[in-house]
Parts: sequence; C-alpha cells; structure tokens
Amino acid sequence: MITLTVDLAERSYPIFIGQDLLQQPGLVAPFVKGTQVMIVTNSTVAPLYLDRAKALFTDLQVDAVVLPDGEEYKNLEILNRIFDQLIGGHFDRKSTLVALGGGVIGDMTGFAAAAYQRGVPFIQIPTTLLSQVDSSVGGKTGVNHPQGKNMIGAFHQPQAVVIDTLTLNTLEDRQLSAGLAEVIKYGLIRDLAFFEWLEQNLEGLMARDHALLAQAIERSCQNKADIVAADETEQGQRALLNLGHTFGHAIEAGMGYGAWLHGEAISAGMMQAAYMSQLLGDLSAADVERIGAIFKRAKLPIYPPNELSNEQFMHYMAGDKKVQAGKVRLVLLKSIGQAYISGDYPAELLQKTLTEWRS
Amino acid sequence: MITLTVDLAERSYPIFIGQDLLQQPGLVAPFVKGTQVMIVTNSTVAPLYLDRAKALFTDLQVDAVVLPDGEEYKNLEILNRIFDQLIGGHFDRKSTLVALGGGVIGDMTGFAAAAYQRGVPFIQIPTTLLSQVDSSVGGKTGVNHPQGKNMIGAFHQPQAVVIDTLTLNTLEDRQLSAGLAEVIKYGLIRDLAFFEWLEQNLEGLMARDHALLAQAIERSCQNKADIVAADETEQGQRALLNLGHTFGHAIEAGMGYGAWLHGEAISAGMMQAAYMSQLLGDLSAADVERIGAIFKRAKLPIYPPNELSNEQFMHYMAGDKKVQAGKVRLVLLKSIGQAYISGDYPAELLQKTLTEWRS
Repeated sequence: MITLTVDLAERSYPIFIGQDLLQQPGLVAPFVKGTQVMIVTNSTVAPLYLDRAKALFTDLQVDAVVLPDGEEYKNLEILNRIFDQLIGGHFDRKSTLVALGGGVIGDMTGFAAAAYQRGVPFIQIPTTLLSQVDSSVGGKTGVNHPQGKNMIGAFHQPQAVVIDTLTLNTLEDRQLSAGLAEVIKYGLIRDLAFFEWLEQNLEGLMARDHALLAQAIERSCQNKADIVAADETEQGQRALLNLGHTFGHAIEAGMGYGAWLHGEAISAGMMQAAYMSQLLGDLSAADVERIGAIFKRAKLPIYPPNELSNEQFMHYMAGDKKVQAGKVRLVLLKSIGQAYISGDYPAELLQKTLTEWRS
Repeated sequence: MITLTVDLAERSYPIFIGQDLLQQPGLVAPFVKGTQVMIVTNSTVAPLYLDRAKALFTDLQVDAVVLPDGEEYKNLEILNRIFDQLIGGHFDRKSTLVALGGGVIGDMTGFAAAAYQRGVPFIQIPTTLLSQVDSSVGGKTGVNHPQGKNMIGAFHQPQAVVIDTLTLNTLEDRQLSAGLAEVIKYGLIRDLAFFEWLEQNLEGLMARDHALLAQAIERSCQNKADIVAADETEQGQRALLNLGHTFGHAIEAGMGYGAWLHGEAISAGMMQAAYMSQLLGDLSAADVERIGAIFKRAKLPIYPPNELSNEQFMHYMAGDKKVQAGKVRLVLLKSIGQAYISGDYPAELLQKTLTEWRS
C-alpha cells in the first residue's frame, strides 16, 4: 500500500492507494469521529461495493443513500435527497459522510458534508480512475447549475481518501479512458517525465495492469497534492489544473450534462488548448500531433462535437468560473510539461481555434 | 456612528451602527473587491430601501434579486433563484453579494455567497432589529429543511455589516418585539447589567427611541461578537446563544415556518428553559416571573402553542442540531445573566416542563 499526504496544515489528510483496501477496516476506523456514518453512493456502484463499504464501519450506525448514476443528477434537487435521509435519520453534527463512487458522488457528498449542519466530516472512497486521480484530492465539492458546471459548492477537505485499485476491474472501458484524460493532463501541465512514462505504458494501463495503475494514480495524486498544498483555494497556480476545462465545460454544458463524459470533454478541450498554443507559437505542429496521439491511444476524442457552434462555445465559456471581469482566462501550454494561465491573448486566435480545430 | 469589530483574525470585520448610514456610500465602498454587486432583498424591503442600497455602489455593475418575504421561503429552491440570477448575469468569482433585509435574507444571501463558485464575499445590511442584533454577527448562514431549521448552510463571515437604525422606523411592531426577544436573551445568558438596563428602558425601545435602540444594538452585538470571537464554529460557549432555541425551533417547525416569528418562538422557548431551570433548583419562581414580565412588556408570548403536544416537541427537538449521539442538549440558566449547556439532566424534568409550562 502507498500512503500520500495532502499537506494542508490542520486540514491535512492521507490518501491510501493499493489493492483490496476495501477489506481493511483498520484503515478508515481512525477517521470516524462520531457514531453515525452515512454512505452516499449510486445505483451502479451500490450492488458492487456497498456491502463491503458498510463492513468497513463496525459498531457504528451505518446507513446509505443510493442516488441515480450520472452527471445529469449532480444538482441541488438530488443533493437534497442526502439531506432528507440525514435529517430523517437524525444524523447529528458529528456524523461522518462517506462518498463511495465516482467524481459526481464525491463532489455531491463533499458538498453535502460541507453544508449539513454547516459542516460535518467526510471520507472519500473513489471507485473510478477519474475520481481517484482528480476529485479525491483538493477539497473541491459542489453541484452543477443548468447553465454552468460546479457553480455551487464549497472547499471542504476529506478526513481520508481510500483508493482500492481493484474497483477499477468493474469500470467500463469508456470510463477508464475518461480517467486517463486527467492522468495525461498532469503530464502536460507540469511533468514531462510522467508524460513520457505514460507514452511508454499506455497499453498496460488500458489493460488494467494494477501495478501500473497504482503508479499512475500515485504520480497523479502527488502532482495534484503539490499544487493544492501551494494554493488551496485556487488563487494562483491551482488554475493550471483546468487545462482543457474551459473548452471542456462548454462541451459538457452545450451537449447536455452526461452526453460527453468529463474526461472525454477535457480531452477534446486539451487538444483545443494545444492547438491554440500552436497558433500562439509555443507548441509545434509535431507537439500537437504527439499529444493527439496519446489521447487517441487512450480511445479519447481529440475534436469537439461539430454540433457545437463557435457561438455556443463562447456563450458557455463566458459563463465559466475562470472568467474575471468579463475576460475568458485560458490555460495554455508553453511546452509539453509546462502550462500557464492567460487572459491576455489575441481574441481572434480563440475564434480561429474554435473554427479550425474541428474534425 | 458606532464602529464595533468582530475579531476573527484574517476574517475580522467591522459593524457600523448609526442613523442614516444608507446615505453614506463611503462606508461600504472599501469592502467591494470586484466590479459586480448583486443585492439580495425581499418584496417587502425592496420598495423601501433598494434604491438607496443601489446608490451605495457607484461605478459598478449593480443588479438585484427580489425574493418573496417570509421564513417559509428560506429553502434550497428559493436559494436557487439567487444562483439563477448570478449565473444568468455572468457574475464572476470576485462578485460581492449584499444582503438587504432581515435574518432570512441575511442567512440566504450569506449561504449563496458561501456556495457561489465555492465562495464570494458579501456585505450585510440588516433592516430588522432581529437581524441587526443576531444574524449580522457570527457568520452563520443557511436555509431550512422541511424537518429542521438551518440544517443546510455554512460558516461564512461578511466583509462588513451596516446597521442603519432608521430602517427600524418601517418595521412592524410585531417584528420589533421579535427582535427584542434576542436582545433580552443577551442579558439572560451573560449580562445581568444589560438585563437591568433593558428593564429600565423597555418602553423607550418599544417607542423606537433611536439613541436607546443604537445602545441596545451595540451592547447586543458586542456580547455576540465576544462569544463568536472565542468560538467561531460553535464547539463550546457559542452554544449559549441558543438559549430558548431548541424549544423555539420545535415551535417554529411544528407550527410551520412563518406562523410564529423566530423571536416569538424563542421567547416562549426561553420561558420553558427558565421554568426547567426552576425545576432544577437554579432559578426561583420570582426569577421566572421577572423574566416573564419583561417578555410580556415587549409584547412577546411566554407560553408555547397548546396545539403542539409534548410528543411533537420531542420529535422536533430530537432533530435539532444540538443533539449529539441521541441526547437533547439544552441551554439552561444558573441565574439571570448566567447560562450553561447540559445534556445531563433528569429526562422527566424536560417532560414536566413541556407539560406544566402551558397557558
């Protein structure tokens, strides 16, 4: 088992990574404060792992709420079901919430924990590659608004994160690919050596080699933990984690949440950012091709949906959180392994990117 | 003008108290960070003060959302209207929210500010006595759940609080009385001298003498600020502020939010706590009578509604946030001016209180 620590002073917490951690009750027990545990999961994950997750918490009142599965349910209305069950079961302010599932479950459970009685602790048990390498680190929680992703939320750090790589055995191929999009992102924004390692090991990861998966998860979480420790509430460099996300969020919102997986949308979005970086003279055409090659090997889309017009892109991008005072700030690449954030680019290059980077 | 400071390290903020502060733009200008201001108010306050509030923010994009007036609208669904308008207007993460209204508006605006894009700043302009002496200090924000008050929320401190006592001129008598319930509470829990001052000046306050009102507001805010500074997230002595609230919340929830005003409910609730303190041998019958006398002069109810049975009381009290591990913790009085919190009392005395303290 690998243990990483996300270093946030009194809000620091461990991430445990390994095989079969869902069979080790001793891991999570020290992180439960009160006597009541509410597991939040969805209808896909519950039949697979809920019993095992419940068995982690012995001698406690353990209840579960099973939400419908999908990004389209990540909203205030479905969030309220968690509150209904907590209040109906008289869960007190020392209750612990447990997120068992992917990023949607993690974000919603985290926000429910942030808001229930103005804040209770929570534990993350991410079961998708995407959530293991992304939403399990950093404390961002929230729900979507029909007009914008993650517009309503809180920063709320978990007590601990338990990543059992065995849960990836039951993950759909499409979801595994979507997770790899975020993994590749860490290479692109700040870790060229990791990008090269991924180029060498991509097929092994796609074949679910557990040793390789654990390495990729560790390196991804370490990259994210380093960034988050330096910038907990996203005032500066943390924004680099949003490479491809401004474009990607427009794709997700424009196509209707759930149509494109988050990882698919940011894969196309990272290609748009890469192409724009080429137009700005920072990347070569060969760089862009090299980035596209690894996404293609990961069976990820490299072009945005043609149904989405430039105008629709601009509409959704203008509503993105990274806008400050009306200006769309974008994460772009100086080189593979080095990202930067800028609102200071010729507006026509963004238009040119939207027009030209099409299938 | 009086200026108090709520001392919370980097989250410290000033409270300005005085006549006609809504005509002084210089007061609030330093507390706006970005270029966009969203004023949240309700349909009662908007015709009276919205224009004046807007005029406070010059050279900025100022918009307003007008919610229906009443505690029954303090829920997630109505909260979402604030998010709709923020997102629809492309308000960015440096936007400032302004709460213009009573406690419901303050709590909802504060929670919207805590959750919008995971946190934006806000300014409070409380226009009721209750909100001026209570919800404007302490950073508690949130909405109700059908089964429990303030069950969903956040701790989020304002940038500044502006209390213009002239707004009390338009306040209904019943609302003024409800505010006095919280004012009297500060005397009861920790400030005997203030309780005695209130006994001497109650009729002047009821007649809206502005000098007396400013003094009462200052002393109330100072008491609350002292408690909050010592215990920002309610781990300890801050719970004393809940004198009468466990009983009172049961009254509000049991009668349907909005039927009894919060101040009315906690007035009856404080009397129940006082009577129980008498049963415990700490207060004399004369003390209980003395407390009842000041509430009666303030035209506040001293008995709970007879429609609410003991069983209903216990049901709603068991759902209260102050329950830990199934035990109803209550704030009780050692003497007038000295409260304490306890879950360690004979259960039958609570039953006896519910049965005997009836009109």
